Amino acid sequence: MTPQARAVETRAVIIRAAADVFGAFGYGGASMADICLAAGLTKGAVYFHFESKEALALAVIDAQHERAIALGGELLHSDQPGLHVLVRMAVELATQLRTDPVSRAGIRLTMESSNLSAPVVTPYEDWIAACDLLLRRAILDGDVRADVDVAAAARFISPAFTGVQVVSDVLTGRDDLMQRIVEMWSFVLPSLVVPERWEQLRTLPQEIVELWA
Amino acid sequence: MTPQARAVETRAVIIRAAADVFGAFGYGGASMADICLAAGLTKGAVYFHFESKEALALAVIDAQHERAIALGGELLHSDQPGLHVLVRMAVELATQLRTDPVSRAGIRLTMESSNLSAPVVTPYEDWIAACDLLLRRAILDGDVRADVDVAAAARFISPAFTGVQVVSDVLTGRDDLMQRIVEMWSFVLPSLVVPERWEQLRTLPQEIVELWA
Repeated sequence: MTPQARAVETRAVIIRAAADVFGAFGYGGASMADICLAAGLTKGAVYFHFESKEALALAVIDAQHERAIALGGELLHSDQPGLHVLVRMAVELATQLRTDPVSRAGIRLTMESSNLSAPVVTPYEDWIAACDLLLRRAILDGDVRADVDVAAAARFISPAFTGVQVVSDVLTGRDDLMQRIVEMWSFVLPSLVVPERWEQLRTLPQEIVELWA
Repeated sequence: MTPQARAVETRAVIIRAAADVFGAFGYGGASMADICLAAGLTKGAVYFHFESKEALALAVIDAQHERAIALGGELLHSDQPGLHVLVRMAVELATQLRTDPVSRAGIRLTMESSNLSAPVVTPYEDWIAACDLLLRRAILDGDVRADVDVAAAARFISPAFTGVQVVSDVLTGRDDLMQRIVEMWSFVLPSLVVPERWEQLRTLPQEIVELWA
């Protein structure tokens, strides 16, 4: 293994250990000492890669956002209809949150990022932009009504997802998240979908959960 | 002033100071020393009332939840139609968040409560229960369709509000919160409202913002 490859691997080990510790204790409760212990590395080795707890928290947020954006990018470039992709994105993001420790820790740190020196805004802006793009595509597909205020819808759907996953986390540890996502769409789709497509699209969220969750 | 009255007043001074410090630095970033300084009291005086930073954070969360519940209780007992009360509750809660430092700090601490020894679930459960009650009343009023899944709607509307206020806080410091609340209702009301009442109710959120925000 080259030194560069070893450095990349060590960085990944540290980020994974930091995700476990931040995920368990939150930003305020986590210490660099705990993270070193979880990574099985000396303080010197960890500080060589990350100069502070804040730098590590931002690296975990970045790692989660990269995974989410990789998923989003893949979906955005699929040739499925825009509304399918939009619903599927929420379902697959929810799956990531339920199964991937780095995603879970990254979301938690993003929600707690008012503790960092600057709040983390990029993920929120990126998701709103992705919703916006997919809604415009869904209008061209004839699934979403042309008179929908797309910017307003995107600025609602993305935050609504944020709130649904936060409350599902607090109340059930995200056990009920898929059911809550299906219900979210059942209350939002009627204000978006072209009436003639309604019968065909009303079961879409449940179908996508069955396929992709 | 009796000793009891003085103790109540001192407690209120400490909670207000704690709200300012938690509101500015979050749970992880706040220290008891900062809170004592902000309250203008000795450590001994503060620890006489609150045994730890966690106890103080829980007191701020309680104070915020009491204010919100006082507002909710007043609205629940008003003789206005259920849907009016539901929309108005979101608008008045948003106003509380925009104007009251204790409410702002309480919500922030509730969102960060994964840092405390037990997550704070009561506010989420109380708001879902209030939405549930108001939606049932709105069905009796003839404003909301009788076939709406009330439990599911309540479990969506309350978390959606949570997400909308979080994202508005991160992106604009809650400057755009009222506009986002009006938009939230514009995307949710179509799936709730009895079609014959739609023309009459579609402008309700904007009217309530103009009256109560």
